[in-house]
Amino acid sequence: MTKTDIATRVYNHSWKLDPIIRSLIDTDFYKLLMLQMIWKLYPDVDATFSVINRTTSVKLAEEIDEGALREQLDHARTVSLSKKEMIWLAGNTFYGRNQIFEPEFLTWLSNYKLPEYELSKRNGQYELNFHGKWMDTTMWEIPALAIINEMRSRTAMRSLGYFTLDVIYARAKARMWEKVQRLRELPGLRISDFGTRRRHSFLWQRWCVEALKEGIGSGFTGTSNVLLAMDSDLEAVGTNAHELPMVAAALAQTDEELRNSPYQVLKDWNRLYHGNLLIVLPDAFGTAAFLRDAPDWVADWTGFRPDSAPPIEGGEKIIDWWKKVGRDPKEKLLIFSDGLDVDAIIQTYKHFEGRVRMSFGWGTNLTNDFAGCAPTEINGLKPISVVCKVSEANGRPAVKLSDNPQKATGDAKEVQRYLRLFGEEDRISQTLVV
Amino acid sequence: MTKTDIATRVYNHSWKLDPIIRSLIDTDFYKLLMLQMIWKLYPDVDATFSVINRTTSVKLAEEIDEGALREQLDHARTVSLSKKEMIWLAGNTFYGRNQIFEPEFLTWLSNYKLPEYELSKRNGQYELNFHGKWMDTTMWEIPALAIINEMRSRTAMRSLGYFTLDVIYARAKARMWEKVQRLRELPGLRISDFGTRRRHSFLWQRWCVEALKEGIGSGFTGTSNVLLAMDSDLEAVGTNAHELPMVAAALAQTDEELRNSPYQVLKDWNRLYHGNLLIVLPDAFGTAAFLRDAPDWVADWTGFRPDSAPPIEGGEKIIDWWKKVGRDPKEKLLIFSDGLDVDAIIQTYKHFEGRVRMSFGWGTNLTNDFAGCAPTEINGLKPISVVCKVSEANGRPAVKLSDNPQKATGDAKEVQRYLRLFGEEDRISQTLVV
Repeated sequence: MTKTDIATRVYNHSWKLDPIIRSLIDTDFYKLLMLQMIWKLYPDVDATFSVINRTTSVKLAEEIDEGALREQLDHARTVSLSKKEMIWLAGNTFYGRNQIFEPEFLTWLSNYKLPEYELSKRNGQYELNFHGKWMDTTMWEIPALAIINEMRSRTAMRSLGYFTLDVIYARAKARMWEKVQRLRELPGLRISDFGTRRRHSFLWQRWCVEALKEGIGSGFTGTSNVLLAMDSDLEAVGTNAHELPMVAAALAQTDEELRNSPYQVLKDWNRLYHGNLLIVLPDAFGTAAFLRDAPDWVADWTGFRPDSAPPIEGGEKIIDWWKKVGRDPKEKLLIFSDGLDVDAIIQTYKHFEGRVRMSFGWGTNLTNDFAGCAPTEINGLKPISVVCKVSEANGRPAVKLSDNPQKATGDAKEVQRYLRLFGEEDRISQTLVV
Repeated sequence: MTKTDIATRVYNHSWKLDPIIRSLIDTDFYKLLMLQMIWKLYPDVDATFSVINRTTSVKLAEEIDEGALREQLDHARTVSLSKKEMIWLAGNTFYGRNQIFEPEFLTWLSNYKLPEYELSKRNGQYELNFHGKWMDTTMWEIPALAIINEMRSRTAMRSLGYFTLDVIYARAKARMWEKVQRLRELPGLRISDFGTRRRHSFLWQRWCVEALKEGIGSGFTGTSNVLLAMDSDLEAVGTNAHELPMVAAALAQTDEELRNSPYQVLKDWNRLYHGNLLIVLPDAFGTAAFLRDAPDWVADWTGFRPDSAPPIEGGEKIIDWWKKVGRDPKEKLLIFSDGLDVDAIIQTYKHFEGRVRMSFGWGTNLTNDFAGCAPTEINGLKPISVVCKVSEANGRPAVKLSDNPQKATGDAKEVQRYLRLFGEEDRISQTLVV
């Protein structure tokens, strides 16, 4: 006799929606840190966030059903902070500090829901925009990306048979474990999961995080995903993102204010956060310009996160700058987080070993590496370079220059203005994989 | 850590269709016996089958999505006999006889697929008709009904949470086991499953059949479902249905031929089948008329299946007739199969115990008894009286009178003509539950 748990089976097959986002803290930790700062210092600023698929060869609007996408976005808007999550955010220690979130902020957050979205199709792509107060719209970044990426992989797998699926996950798991085995050879490695936004799926990210926890042990320093950090008793990690200097720059009334905006946001940040949270993200308008004009106190911050320059060149430039301004790189921290795979991690680690403290934020190649796992290649399982960026602040265009011109975003005329102001030194075009 | 088999979960949630009919032999055994006779003796007759929902208060077209219904019907049309099924039909013993199916018939059957259907909506009901050769259309009866009934229960359960479902099935199982315990008290009981057409679902029928097998043992004499008989090593049971006399009557050219048609089909049957397959279904045009005009040889048949008279009254009349024509009822068999529940089975069993051989064909109350199982009552889980009847043969209307006027079908003028010819003696109106 074949035995089937009928209730389980009926339940499995009668779901109308399998929600991708089931928790407001299924997001990156840095969003909460930034949100508290925006809520405290910029509660009246409007900011529009826009999803941009930089992999233009992939026509998202042709791959992903619009009705199903709307169902997922609508569902995400129904999610709010659970009591357990609230208690955990209030009671947990983050970066060694108690009560990193103010009680008033958590009270506000407990009533928070994701705001409206605007979705349309254009040239085979989705135009997905979030208009409103910055402190409302900023929280869409990660769920919007996670939804799009998981819908892509679900669509790609919809027609596959059970054994094909079983083989795909078996291969992905075997590959993941090989990566773990290579990484555990690096004795002082510190690595964390930054893969929420472009993950294959929530469940797969969870599996990868648990695999790192078991496989790498204390060298696995945490996950950017707040929900997984809570559920798996890991450190929640992350600091700040380009949206801070981008909004500050967009709001600048003069060229002087614009030039000063990258440092202004660091001062803002420092009003709320300290210690290991003092990480500089230098590349919003080019790292060379940032270092050239940086006030001396920037060198007192704990470290830098070079996010678009090639890691070795980018790291060397920052080390040179620290030396130039009289700081010992060995006491400083570099966080690498741009498009890392195991080869890049190992190469970068070996290059800088003993010369600087290092940490790696491993993203898409950790949580969405299925190329070659399917018996016949499935394009929908290849990750794409999709981002959700602030595009306007108080009605003014927001711009990112980046160290890699491929990662620049914003109105072309404004980009030219920013380039005139900050210069183009050291910008190197690199092909974007993700 | 929560552990999830991701491949299994993705597979469960990405099915486009969960087919209700996955095998051509997921049907009642009597359809195959009749089919062989139709194929052999009436290959050129056209017959239309029509689904009729006698529970008019339930608006099937409002409950069941038409697109989903068409997907299920279309899928059923893709199913053909598998090699394993063919070998089993050829090699298994049915009713103690080898090779009950001729090799030529099985060869024909191996190429068989369900023919086209006509589906439309009218007054909140579906009009579902099957036109074509009798030997093609007859096979739709059971899958059409099983699809409609399972789609109803799936629709009713679609919005239920896991624990509600778990409770529903737990209660239904507990109730089923109470029935088994009551039935095992009857020492010589012979009972079989006749519940395919109105089952809650295939999986639930399978569970019930396995429960009877384990709970009642040798008193459980088999199942009408050929697939379950094969998979669970049970006897496939069933003989013939009203469609045989209905088509014969519709084809009759004269009143004399019409009056003779119920006996003509028995002669046809006897050309192919013998022994325990010689079961008379006497009520197509009223049991009283059938017995009144029956030739003496009818009394030599193994037994009768009264299918619309109240079981005790109906059984007594047949016993009286056997005695009148000089046969010993103790050597004869009565098969009760009309709307049985456990009370009716026990009452009937005790009434006739020792006076006649008996067997029970337990249908809807076995495989679709969920009333009161849901925490709050769900109408869609209550079985309905839906049938699929021959409505025309060679363009002439087909009629059933039945012993219960509520079960009569056919063109009103023709019904009057049949009533004039056969009489109305002993017809008793009984409320139809199923």
